[in-house]
Amino acid sequence: MHKFVRNLITEWRKLELPFSGETLVVAVSGGADSVSLLLALTDLQKRKKLDLRLVAAHFDHRLRGNESSADGAFVEDLAQHLSVEYVRGQMPRPDRGNLEEFARHERYAFLEQTAAGSGAFAVATGHTVNDQAETFLMNLIRGSGSRGLSAMIPDRKLGSTRLIRPLLSWAKREDTEEFCRDAGIEFREDAMNQDPRFTRVRIRKEVIPLLEEFNPKIVQTLAATARLLDQRCDNDAADFPELLVVAELKQLSKPELYQTLRGWIGSRRGSLRSVDLKHIEGIEQLISSRKSGRESELPGGWRVVKQGGKLRLRNIMVDK
Amino acid sequence: MHKFVRNLITEWRKLELPFSGETLVVAVSGGADSVSLLLALTDLQKRKKLDLRLVAAHFDHRLRGNESSADGAFVEDLAQHLSVEYVRGQMPRPDRGNLEEFARHERYAFLEQTAAGSGAFAVATGHTVNDQAETFLMNLIRGSGSRGLSAMIPDRKLGSTRLIRPLLSWAKREDTEEFCRDAGIEFREDAMNQDPRFTRVRIRKEVIPLLEEFNPKIVQTLAATARLLDQRCDNDAADFPELLVVAELKQLSKPELYQTLRGWIGSRRGSLRSVDLKHIEGIEQLISSRKSGRESELPGGWRVVKQGGKLRLRNIMVDK
Repeated sequence: MHKFVRNLITEWRKLELPFSGETLVVAVSGGADSVSLLLALTDLQKRKKLDLRLVAAHFDHRLRGNESSADGAFVEDLAQHLSVEYVRGQMPRPDRGNLEEFARHERYAFLEQTAAGSGAFAVATGHTVNDQAETFLMNLIRGSGSRGLSAMIPDRKLGSTRLIRPLLSWAKREDTEEFCRDAGIEFREDAMNQDPRFTRVRIRKEVIPLLEEFNPKIVQTLAATARLLDQRCDNDAADFPELLVVAELKQLSKPELYQTLRGWIGSRRGSLRSVDLKHIEGIEQLISSRKSGRESELPGGWRVVKQGGKLRLRNIMVDK
Repeated sequence: MHKFVRNLITEWRKLELPFSGETLVVAVSGGADSVSLLLALTDLQKRKKLDLRLVAAHFDHRLRGNESSADGAFVEDLAQHLSVEYVRGQMPRPDRGNLEEFARHERYAFLEQTAAGSGAFAVATGHTVNDQAETFLMNLIRGSGSRGLSAMIPDRKLGSTRLIRPLLSWAKREDTEEFCRDAGIEFREDAMNQDPRFTRVRIRKEVIPLLEEFNPKIVQTLAATARLLDQRCDNDAADFPELLVVAELKQLSKPELYQTLRGWIGSRRGSLRSVDLKHIEGIEQLISSRKSGRESELPGGWRVVKQGGKLRLRNIMVDK
């Protein structure tokens, strides 16, 4: 058995994931990460280590026209070759705002639907140690603060389903490429990983290589740091009331206040994605300002409203 | 009053530093940071806001021969011009090992001696928000882990004296240069800040500019993040026993173990400087290994020794 496959089944046990009788949606972009995941899973099926119904789900971001749809055709052929079901989703024309955020949102909406539609217990993605490191750097550069620096985790809720990342804790991108080559299976440099409009692509191609000159193991180092920071305080798990009392917030030190606001937003909004220091500072001003009924905006149509000495979190897209 | 001077006296009050009747050693390299600090302090003396005995202390790192001693001559002239006492120290020939670490150690030893010799209550340095950001990046790249990422603080113990950094919380490097220009006082690009053998110099000249392309306020962002992380957990302040029981350490989760080892080393050794993940991993192996009497090395002549089921921290330079 290839060590990549052995590592995967070891992680599978560690995460206590089901071995049989379930359906699993595997997100496959066509890149080495997701292709190696699908390959290793079907290998485990052949070896009777797993007995799951696998559905390969490809999302076409329509970023580079033909190139992009060629990724889809490639994944469709691969799925057929591995005798795995294939489902395809497509990006609607991005209207406005952050393309990267929008593409991400649409992709996960499609994966969640596909899981619901096929009765899957979870969606699996091919995120690697490199993605962990890149995400950490993106959050750090954006200024997400301590709470926002928290790491990706290998098993979390995704709307009505679960998002599992069985490569995240151990596989480097080069391991996924090596496994594909050893298995004699092609992979694509998928469109998402080439587009220089995407911060992540520039982090990968410009920032990481520079940092590697200082520390050749920078990827593992950053991923390990992200995990350590994430588990540093258990109060991250604390859950928060619907309303925050302004008078009480005024008693807190700045770090306490920032922690509280991040924890509150995270627990009410579901995530701290795209929430950075300037948003928290905006709420801080809202707290100190005399006027009532003032608002402070957050990404994704959310806003913090101050009324009657209390802070409330609203989403203009949801609440009427 | 120049806003730089106003900011300094505001910070002085915030840190509850003495206004009169004390001696203060000011570390002056000749660069804009330390020159602006000395200038602003003497300005406050003239304005009778402060009544301290100031001693300008310059350490010659002997990095660029004449250049380096020219820094000293410049600081001596400046001190005379401002009618401030002047003391000069010099680097012995670096024997071996990390030049940057060695230079730093020698410089602080000199400043501490100078404080003791002049009966000063503290040593003041011109560290800025930029230094905070650069230090954070250096620790991050080296892999210092969550505990090691802790920020520089504006007032801490330095051996038998105190180290105060009255610019750290608010001044950007450009503010110090602007103040020097407005005051019509020259400053030097001091040798320490030019030597490409120093990681910090490359961080400043290569890494920060690249990150600024993503976030123009990256310096403030990183400094704010360092402060937030630093204050995230109060258990950082916990103090630790002389010996750690191996059997108990084996009960801990990896993050708990890393936190404990970092806290223990920090409290026994006085700092976590240069201690990175590979050192902690070395101790982790020491814990899991069957053999007794084995050792794991730490920077600065320190080592962790396992004996009779306990871990002890020793320094070969101190303990015989």
